[in-house]
Amino acid sequence: MARINEHYAKLPASYLFPEIGRRVRTYQAAHPDARVIRLGIGDVTEPLAPAIVAAMHAAVDEMGTRETFRGYGPEQGYDFLVEAIRDNDYKARGVEIAADEIFVSDGSKCDSGNVQEIFALTAKIAVTDPVYPVYVDSNVMAGRTPAVGTDGRYPGLTYLVGSEQNGFQPEPPASPVDVVYLCSPNNPTGTVVMCAQFQSWVTWARKNDVVILFDAAYESYISDPALPRSIYEIDGARECALELRSFSKRAGFTGVRCAFMVVPKTVMGTGADGARVPLHALWSRRHTTKFNGASYVVQKGAAAAYSPEGLLQTNAQIAFYMENARLLREGLTAAGFTIFGGVHAPYIWLRTRNNATSWDFFDRLLNEAQVVGTPGAGFGPAGEGYFRLSAFNSRANVEEAIGRIRKVFG
Amino acid sequence: MARINEHYAKLPASYLFPEIGRRVRTYQAAHPDARVIRLGIGDVTEPLAPAIVAAMHAAVDEMGTRETFRGYGPEQGYDFLVEAIRDNDYKARGVEIAADEIFVSDGSKCDSGNVQEIFALTAKIAVTDPVYPVYVDSNVMAGRTPAVGTDGRYPGLTYLVGSEQNGFQPEPPASPVDVVYLCSPNNPTGTVVMCAQFQSWVTWARKNDVVILFDAAYESYISDPALPRSIYEIDGARECALELRSFSKRAGFTGVRCAFMVVPKTVMGTGADGARVPLHALWSRRHTTKFNGASYVVQKGAAAAYSPEGLLQTNAQIAFYMENARLLREGLTAAGFTIFGGVHAPYIWLRTRNNATSWDFFDRLLNEAQVVGTPGAGFGPAGEGYFRLSAFNSRANVEEAIGRIRKVFG
Repeated sequence: MARINEHYAKLPASYLFPEIGRRVRTYQAAHPDARVIRLGIGDVTEPLAPAIVAAMHAAVDEMGTRETFRGYGPEQGYDFLVEAIRDNDYKARGVEIAADEIFVSDGSKCDSGNVQEIFALTAKIAVTDPVYPVYVDSNVMAGRTPAVGTDGRYPGLTYLVGSEQNGFQPEPPASPVDVVYLCSPNNPTGTVVMCAQFQSWVTWARKNDVVILFDAAYESYISDPALPRSIYEIDGARECALELRSFSKRAGFTGVRCAFMVVPKTVMGTGADGARVPLHALWSRRHTTKFNGASYVVQKGAAAAYSPEGLLQTNAQIAFYMENARLLREGLTAAGFTIFGGVHAPYIWLRTRNNATSWDFFDRLLNEAQVVGTPGAGFGPAGEGYFRLSAFNSRANVEEAIGRIRKVFG
Repeated sequence: MARINEHYAKLPASYLFPEIGRRVRTYQAAHPDARVIRLGIGDVTEPLAPAIVAAMHAAVDEMGTRETFRGYGPEQGYDFLVEAIRDNDYKARGVEIAADEIFVSDGSKCDSGNVQEIFALTAKIAVTDPVYPVYVDSNVMAGRTPAVGTDGRYPGLTYLVGSEQNGFQPEPPASPVDVVYLCSPNNPTGTVVMCAQFQSWVTWARKNDVVILFDAAYESYISDPALPRSIYEIDGARECALELRSFSKRAGFTGVRCAFMVVPKTVMGTGADGARVPLHALWSRRHTTKFNGASYVVQKGAAAAYSPEGLLQTNAQIAFYMENARLLREGLTAAGFTIFGGVHAPYIWLRTRNNATSWDFFDRLLNEAQVVGTPGAGFGPAGEGYFRLSAFNSRANVEEAIGRIRKVFG
């Protein structure tokens, strides 16, 4: 009798995006002529940059030739990619990361779901609210929580509530925790951690022996050069933080699949006997035992995003999306919405009209403007009454969406 | 204070293949002119088939064009690949598998490491010995065992011992277990489960409510058309077995990364309350929460392996490797070795000479013949005294290796 992992039953029946898909399909079936504009799921729309396409073609040819064929690669990633990451993402920002502290993977969703495995089941986990659901769900599935409470929160997790008052950037918790997930630029609120806040997080983490899991999947959307792109630009972060990066939003890799996690050898956890253990040893073991490297062709494409042409081309894509974000911010403001984010992130977070619930607002936006967004409640109880719109779409669709929203709400 | 997952400390310090790499590097450093032939790690050497190369090029071009660009794909895999799998791997063998019972992934190592997550930590796990180490290590890391015993085995796991007496195909255990990992054609022994044995495994599993995790990564190397390729060719397997398949060895994808797992909706586990729960619901949740789909370009390449040209080309590669296996079998037999496998699998399993330990034999083979293989002890205590050679290499290297081995041992 194979007993199942009963913690899975604690999760709500459906993940956010399948439910959105269901409602959109129902609407489309009833209104086959409606042209629905999707600003919901955070998925890129621009094609791969020419430099990336060329590199992937060359890699496919290598794989088709005996002399240059590659079988299993280094589990942590090929040197050509690891060195490009070190030089461009870290050295250029004054940060020294060793090659073997970088773990190339097939996606940040996987990394952020898997990283909790290296901590004890008794580790006390803190997340923000609203939050990227994978942080919460992967800890629930591992068994770190009882059933969800009537307030929509899991007892056993510590929730750091984002609100208009704190600019959706909560402070470190007063109660003791072991691990905290931070995401900046933030998904879903589009807000960023500022320098002083960054320093206070790191100072707090070091003082309280907390590990920060810093998700920087959207770092390339930061438009102010004075803002940190990496948590390691903050003194002391190498002693307390792991950093997750992705090529999904920076190079249009949502369908190509490549990401990486930085695990400095100086970040320590504590064993049952009180011994200090580098998390690097644990993640290395996890990565080499349960993963077998990212595709060679994909890694060649990712490395090309750092070439001079690749940087120009992908930066132009990011600027294009951020112009969409600017148009959305202006249009929504003109329509009378209170908005957040969208300056250093491709997401605009808006307060619903007339205290509508976020799902009611979703339905109204779909029915009256044929625009799809993401209900804030899908990101946690503190997201209720808010709504996420994404800047990933064509200019024409973004302008059309703004026009429709202004007509309905303006 | 972030308490770590202390179960990781129960694993031996080094995984098998890094230790092999270390010894080979040491030898090469001392003998820079030696031409070492590697028949150790099971990695393909033939380039990708032309049909696959063409499909991947076409997919890269699609990704570089706005109209045909693909972002996030279906988490379970694209229809074009899922349908090719259903038709070629299952319908053609008389087996009906629903599209949503197939989960495309980036590798069987990941799938076989992750699948244990859907079972309770109290689930009683059985593995063969010798065994693919990931099955054991992933369960140790999850916390299902105490520290390893002096016999090299983990108390809490049930070991089904393969031996020359049972042809390295152990029987189902007499003591109760919940989950058993089976691999056929077997890594490392190269032996296969025969029809009658298959049926007795399925009958036993159904009678005792056991889930079989059937790893068929090497099914395309089965040379006898009368032998089952899928466990679902056995009556009743749809009620008790999950099946893991990979493109790594069948289409040269070790560096490309694509695999899939079949989870029939009719395989049940048991909840804490005694309720019967389809494992499909749990794996679907795990797959969609902690994974984000395999690369589009990679899935297009995998689908091309099923095209008429792709099948011809990849079957020719398999025939090439199997001719290597035949030459190895003959050469090793002529050199006086007792061997197993190599008929329906690319691995030859041999008994060491003069009761040498498998690591001593490794060192002797490296030092005297400059041939690298894999010590049987790396696959478990029952592998001691045995040695794995792989047929993945050029014909010239295989013939040279055989010549050297015959010179040293013949």
